[in-house]
Amino acid sequence: MQSVAFYRDQFEEYLSSGMTDRDPKSLYDPMFYILKLGGKRLRPVLTLLSADLFGGDPKEAFRAAMAIEYFHNFSLIHDDIMDAAPLRRGKTTVHKKWDLNTGILSGDAMLIEAYRFLEPYPPKVFKDLTTLFSKTAMEVCEGQQYDIDFETQEEVSVPQYLKMIKFKTAVLVGAAMKMGAITAGASLSDQEKIYSFGLYLGVAFQLQDDYLDVFGDPKVFGKQVGGDIIENKKTYLYLKALEQGDLQQARELKDLFSIQPKKTEKKIKRVIEIYDQSGASKETKEAIAHYTNKAFDCLNTLDISQEKKEVLLTFGRDLMGRKV
Amino acid sequence: MQSVAFYRDQFEEYLSSGMTDRDPKSLYDPMFYILKLGGKRLRPVLTLLSADLFGGDPKEAFRAAMAIEYFHNFSLIHDDIMDAAPLRRGKTTVHKKWDLNTGILSGDAMLIEAYRFLEPYPPKVFKDLTTLFSKTAMEVCEGQQYDIDFETQEEVSVPQYLKMIKFKTAVLVGAAMKMGAITAGASLSDQEKIYSFGLYLGVAFQLQDDYLDVFGDPKVFGKQVGGDIIENKKTYLYLKALEQGDLQQARELKDLFSIQPKKTEKKIKRVIEIYDQSGASKETKEAIAHYTNKAFDCLNTLDISQEKKEVLLTFGRDLMGRKV
Repeated sequence: MQSVAFYRDQFEEYLSSGMTDRDPKSLYDPMFYILKLGGKRLRPVLTLLSADLFGGDPKEAFRAAMAIEYFHNFSLIHDDIMDAAPLRRGKTTVHKKWDLNTGILSGDAMLIEAYRFLEPYPPKVFKDLTTLFSKTAMEVCEGQQYDIDFETQEEVSVPQYLKMIKFKTAVLVGAAMKMGAITAGASLSDQEKIYSFGLYLGVAFQLQDDYLDVFGDPKVFGKQVGGDIIENKKTYLYLKALEQGDLQQARELKDLFSIQPKKTEKKIKRVIEIYDQSGASKETKEAIAHYTNKAFDCLNTLDISQEKKEVLLTFGRDLMGRKV
Repeated sequence: MQSVAFYRDQFEEYLSSGMTDRDPKSLYDPMFYILKLGGKRLRPVLTLLSADLFGGDPKEAFRAAMAIEYFHNFSLIHDDIMDAAPLRRGKTTVHKKWDLNTGILSGDAMLIEAYRFLEPYPPKVFKDLTTLFSKTAMEVCEGQQYDIDFETQEEVSVPQYLKMIKFKTAVLVGAAMKMGAITAGASLSDQEKIYSFGLYLGVAFQLQDDYLDVFGDPKVFGKQVGGDIIENKKTYLYLKALEQGDLQQARELKDLFSIQPKKTEKKIKRVIEIYDQSGASKETKEAIAHYTNKAFDCLNTLDISQEKKEVLLTFGRDLMGRKV
């Protein structure tokens, strides 16, 4: 079995080879632009690893991996419009570099193109891949909608929040792995196990994102630490603090999340104190470990060589040990 | 063979039965809202007629017809955003009734849902339908992009314009018919013929739209007559007038299309005179007849009963005789 870095390079090469000029340029150039912004290519690499894991030829999984990566970038273009975000990976977002209409239409075309990558697979495999892809795509839209709804929703529960991040983030990681397994002809039972592995890893990944936003090392985090607090975002930390804290802590936290002071330091400092004192920080770390372990448990039920499992275990550990 | 009205009623019933409350409501309600605005349901009815034409059970084509109608409405939601249109079928557009983000996300979900309607078909049929659907969807996006590009493009040729309306409008009519044929198990050759019928009919339909915008009966047209002239829209009439008119007419027409006077009557009157004098009006009428006849020619090459052909011929004649 090859390394994560090996598959990342292979995927990058495959991705680049597909980006040749196409008309109308005003539709295709923005797609290639966002794809070229880079990123860790986590999802497509997981598709290739998963194909390898089940004895398939990872080259046969390239097109499934492309579908996943195109879909992911479609969602980034449209999410950036919805969030009015000026930057993505430190570069101008599509709708800012071009305009709103270009962002909408190039995003649409990217979603359709994602489906088209699956067409070379034989009918039965094509149907399995496409059906999983559509289900996942719809869940991602539902997750995004829940995320938007939560902004104005007075009460959000921890289970509701977990459902939101499961849909918005984790199902695509699960689907990326399951699609690799499908191309390799894995059994239905193995497909489900590797899907669950990805799903739990995706939840852990997103919870860790919430955690690092507050407790990440500013030198390596890349984003402004405390950004979620400044924006009054209802994260896992916030919801856990409301759930676990006493009445006084809950009231103060809600008050702090109803203001947007110009100078943010005092607010961030006080919110972090409440996160710590209420037990929310500890609970969040435990939840990350809990979902990571659930992912690893799924992996361990698979009847494959320890050597192959190790690659994914290392991948998971690296991901969960990240500071960025 | 049943009548167009019969299939329209059947389709309306099927469509309504699928609109039951789903969470998150903020995602699904806008989809149901635009579907309930009505419309002629031309495209899905053509899918059912086509299935019937080739000896299939039109009930088996319901889901293909739904995919077509959902796709069409997805494109309406996103196009209305791009055109900043406040009204659709006399009612508030989705992005105005809700907001921009709702318009984008509900549109995305509607496109994905369109694909999902095809899932009950067996693998080979599913793949044929999905592949045609994706190709068509991408062409519609490309057509929309050309339409946007033409607004700021100095020179647009008649062939470029025909390609634009073919992609933006006609391919979906062709695909609607071909998908009905696929569900009925028609031969590849018959699939191509009925696709071409729909394609030519779609081009004729769009050219007629351009014509009626200027020469339609204001009492029955429903929209403001001359709207395209007021908006300086490069239509078939305009491009033909530039192509066929003398230098003096072309220069005057370009001048008229560079201004936006508050009182529009004089401008509209003068543009119509140029359309008539340059031969553009006559050429447009001829082009409509030309594409309608090409459509009918395709129909006549089909080895099916005259009775079945008559239903589609009548449909085409009614459509082309419309004043609305």
